[in-house]
Amino acid sequence: MDNKSSFRTMKGYQMIDKSKISASMEDYLEMIYRMLKTQPLVRVNDLARKLNVRPSSASKMAAQLNDLGLISFERYGYIKPTEKGAAYGNYLLYRHDVLMEFLCYINNSEDELEQVEKIEHFIDEKTVYNISRVLKLLKETAK
Amino acid sequence: MDNKSSFRTMKGYQMIDKSKISASMEDYLEMIYRMLKTQPLVRVNDLARKLNVRPSSASKMAAQLNDLGLISFERYGYIKPTEKGAAYGNYLLYRHDVLMEFLCYINNSEDELEQVEKIEHFIDEKTVYNISRVLKLLKETAK
Repeated sequence: MDNKSSFRTMKGYQMIDKSKISASMEDYLEMIYRMLKTQPLVRVNDLARKLNVRPSSASKMAAQLNDLGLISFERYGYIKPTEKGAAYGNYLLYRHDVLMEFLCYINNSEDELEQVEKIEHFIDEKTVYNISRVLKLLKETAK
Repeated sequence: MDNKSSFRTMKGYQMIDKSKISASMEDYLEMIYRMLKTQPLVRVNDLARKLNVRPSSASKMAAQLNDLGLISFERYGYIKPTEKGAAYGNYLLYRHDVLMEFLCYINNSEDELEQVEKIEHFIDEKTVYNISRVLKLLKETAK
């Protein structure tokens, strides 16, 4: 993602009232919008399976995210994107990917999922942007 | 801190069984060994004041850290260092300082305490070492 589009992603995200959104909600949103990258809708049972939670827990969370306008949770357990939710979800995916790529790069490793999952909720937009900038710089310097 | 001494710091830290040590314990240890940098012992009441907790909470935690051999908690509420605790405490200070310096540097800011406090417990030794390496590289590149 280039700087221009990453900035756009963050702009949409910044317009959302984050005080109502917990780390757990972020995990759900991140997975929903990850799944929506390759499919038009997400079944709540598939979401539950991906997150290793009970379908009833996933349904409850989906209802909350629906109330916040971050997804559209429809009949038969279908989840569809909303404009507001997509801005947020894509930012969460971007934040995750930037942190993962940075940690893998500096640690010369393939998988830093555990650390990323633990820290991503606490890393602010400015830091995400600057880590992606530093990563680019490091890669250029290493050439 | 140069690479050699940072490596030594981490080595002492790695010998400690971290499964028994919570994030809150780390916060206490970090503060105790920070205070011990400039004074021979720490009074539990001063520690409580620094951490904005009640003296009774600080005493309770000091007793636990004493049982783990990470401090020596003596009569009249005096806390003294132990060899094992100093290795850990100095590593915690180093981890904190590396993350703080890195985030301040990339964000061009003076204070990133909130983010550092939230993420430091989840950043492993390898990552701390490599962030300090990257920070050095960034500073050299910027010259």
